[in-house]
Amino acid sequence: MNFEYYAPTKVVFGKGSEEKTGELVKDQGGHKVLLHYGSGSVVRSGLLDKICQSLEKAGLSYVMLGGVVPNPRLSKVREGIQLCRKENVDFLLAVGGGSVIDSTKAIGYGLANEGDVWDFYERKRQAEGCMPLGAVLTIAAAGSEMSDSSVITNEDGWIKRGYSSNYCRCRFVVMDPELTYTLPDYQTQSGCVDIMMHTMERYFNLSDNMELTDGISETLIRSVMKNAKILKQNPTDYNARAEVMWASSLSHNGLTGCGTGGGDWASHQIAHELGGMFDVAHGAGLAAIWESWARYVYREAPERFAGFASRIFDLEEKDTETLALAGIEKMEDFYRSVGMPTSLKELGVEPTEAQIHEMAEKCCFFGCRTVGVIKRLDAADIEEIYRMARE
Amino acid sequence: MNFEYYAPTKVVFGKGSEEKTGELVKDQGGHKVLLHYGSGSVVRSGLLDKICQSLEKAGLSYVMLGGVVPNPRLSKVREGIQLCRKENVDFLLAVGGGSVIDSTKAIGYGLANEGDVWDFYERKRQAEGCMPLGAVLTIAAAGSEMSDSSVITNEDGWIKRGYSSNYCRCRFVVMDPELTYTLPDYQTQSGCVDIMMHTMERYFNLSDNMELTDGISETLIRSVMKNAKILKQNPTDYNARAEVMWASSLSHNGLTGCGTGGGDWASHQIAHELGGMFDVAHGAGLAAIWESWARYVYREAPERFAGFASRIFDLEEKDTETLALAGIEKMEDFYRSVGMPTSLKELGVEPTEAQIHEMAEKCCFFGCRTVGVIKRLDAADIEEIYRMARE
Repeated sequence: MNFEYYAPTKVVFGKGSEEKTGELVKDQGGHKVLLHYGSGSVVRSGLLDKICQSLEKAGLSYVMLGGVVPNPRLSKVREGIQLCRKENVDFLLAVGGGSVIDSTKAIGYGLANEGDVWDFYERKRQAEGCMPLGAVLTIAAAGSEMSDSSVITNEDGWIKRGYSSNYCRCRFVVMDPELTYTLPDYQTQSGCVDIMMHTMERYFNLSDNMELTDGISETLIRSVMKNAKILKQNPTDYNARAEVMWASSLSHNGLTGCGTGGGDWASHQIAHELGGMFDVAHGAGLAAIWESWARYVYREAPERFAGFASRIFDLEEKDTETLALAGIEKMEDFYRSVGMPTSLKELGVEPTEAQIHEMAEKCCFFGCRTVGVIKRLDAADIEEIYRMARE
Repeated sequence: MNFEYYAPTKVVFGKGSEEKTGELVKDQGGHKVLLHYGSGSVVRSGLLDKICQSLEKAGLSYVMLGGVVPNPRLSKVREGIQLCRKENVDFLLAVGGGSVIDSTKAIGYGLANEGDVWDFYERKRQAEGCMPLGAVLTIAAAGSEMSDSSVITNEDGWIKRGYSSNYCRCRFVVMDPELTYTLPDYQTQSGCVDIMMHTMERYFNLSDNMELTDGISETLIRSVMKNAKILKQNPTDYNARAEVMWASSLSHNGLTGCGTGGGDWASHQIAHELGGMFDVAHGAGLAAIWESWARYVYREAPERFAGFASRIFDLEEKDTETLALAGIEKMEDFYRSVGMPTSLKELGVEPTEAQIHEMAEKCCFFGCRTVGVIKRLDAADIEEIYRMARE
């Protein structure tokens, strides 16, 4: 039950909070800022202009680098490192969602360490620092704004890898729920799955769990499910956007992992390979995989799955195994109700046997590791889960 | 619903975690440490020896200052400031509960700022820094280990005042639930009340609350009630001690206040005056006051009190007001069941009318402020609450 908890990111939450960005950067001692962002939507919405004005008002100068894509690319990270070196940038500001924040973190590693930044993601060596960064969040999903992790895709072989350390934690994050009003429904729902899964990955484990952590996790999962349905009907419901946005941070800042021994994380690893090979939305990929993973492993921890079923869905069954399976089915029903895929086919992906084999091998680092803790999965297990998830 | 959340304290939780203290101080750049503690219990238990060994192992030197009492005194703070100046201390380590941590925070303010430290508690001016500090927690109650606040009593007039700023947040806290095994039952239960009240103060407000925050708060309150009862029977139940210890931090690190607009805090202010005048255990004082406060104000927010009754105690009543009152009664029942007082008489305090008048005047800074938000209470209201609480 021993654990460490460290979530030093300052959260500034609410309507209009993006106007404080300049002052927040200044408080952190920044002078020359990299403004890193993704697509044109932050330009079109006028958000980028607002942030620039806020930086100027605080007396700060900045350079801009857009073009971050979902499953953010190593080439963009390298471009950012080069630009920041040339421009003597001393603070990094991400304006976007998890992909932009992850790309910013990787740039920060590259600037604060000698040598090739990809080394860290390949686990060849450990980072010894990261340039200070902050974020203006526009997508509630990845939780990268309070997490210690970043995930980058190397186009050379389409390998998607994560690297975690406390160095890359955001100094601050600005969260205005209104900034997420214009997200398309599919992306909103995909974000909600991602949020739930960050808690569910931690929830499913073989430790003696703390009931306080379980209670917080169950509250969070139920709240996101409820508000995902509200947003399906009304994407500009402020309260629902706010609940989901705050849940995205709490789901990945470590709070729901206290006393869980770390959690399972196999679904994430398995879905990452889909993201690397087929460039699918991360949350949707998780939705398409989770039930197959759950059906493959639940017999290793039937009580845990049964507890999930009874406390998330208020289900009652005399038999533990029946209850566990009923909970998995209910989760599938929920995903369908908000338009999320529950199979690879629904996700729009039909991998060949060769592709399944390749993804499973990559996932296990070609035999160097297993994934998951509920059941330690090797490449053969993972291939079977991909097959089960086909339709 | 706008809020800020900032809880940068690193938590190291679990059996034997106190052995990491030296390394944690070293990570923070400390060289010469003030070891600040309270009574002889940390000496007798051998904890102080363990901490000294851990500091020595990390190559750190230290000076010691014990003798902190509950409702920690300004004179001890001044003694600490003088000692640290003389000894060139650069890191403060609290070994104890809320009183020791609060005393340490005050010493930190005194060292990092010119002039008299009491100025900050009297709100004459703002602190501009605090010497870095950490804590080894031995009592689960005050939540000072992750909070931004400290409360000090000035013996000159027995005035108890709090001061809050981010500067005084602990850099780290070491939490080993086993360190709380030997706490006497009255202190354990008083701690549980304090923990619940830190969340309940935030829970009762007039804002539009976030359901995620409400859910976390309700989980926390229910968990502490359940585990307080377990500890009444078995004070060395590790899991119960762990749940209560982690709840003490989460209850006062701001998490249960997100989106609440700050909370009410009248019960704390009213009980503080009891602590200042009669030196009662803080949690027991809160238990003795809360119901009278609740009965005095619930009509200002009947829905909130009714929701509390239904979600904490699973009560059902057709009428909102009846439900609200039933919840207050149930809380009284709970306090009695764990041996906590529900009146001043049970607390062992029988103030005269003159004393009631004096406490109420002090509480309102002699007419300079009201306390609470559910109902803004002036001195006359507070006198009435003290009278209602008599028996």
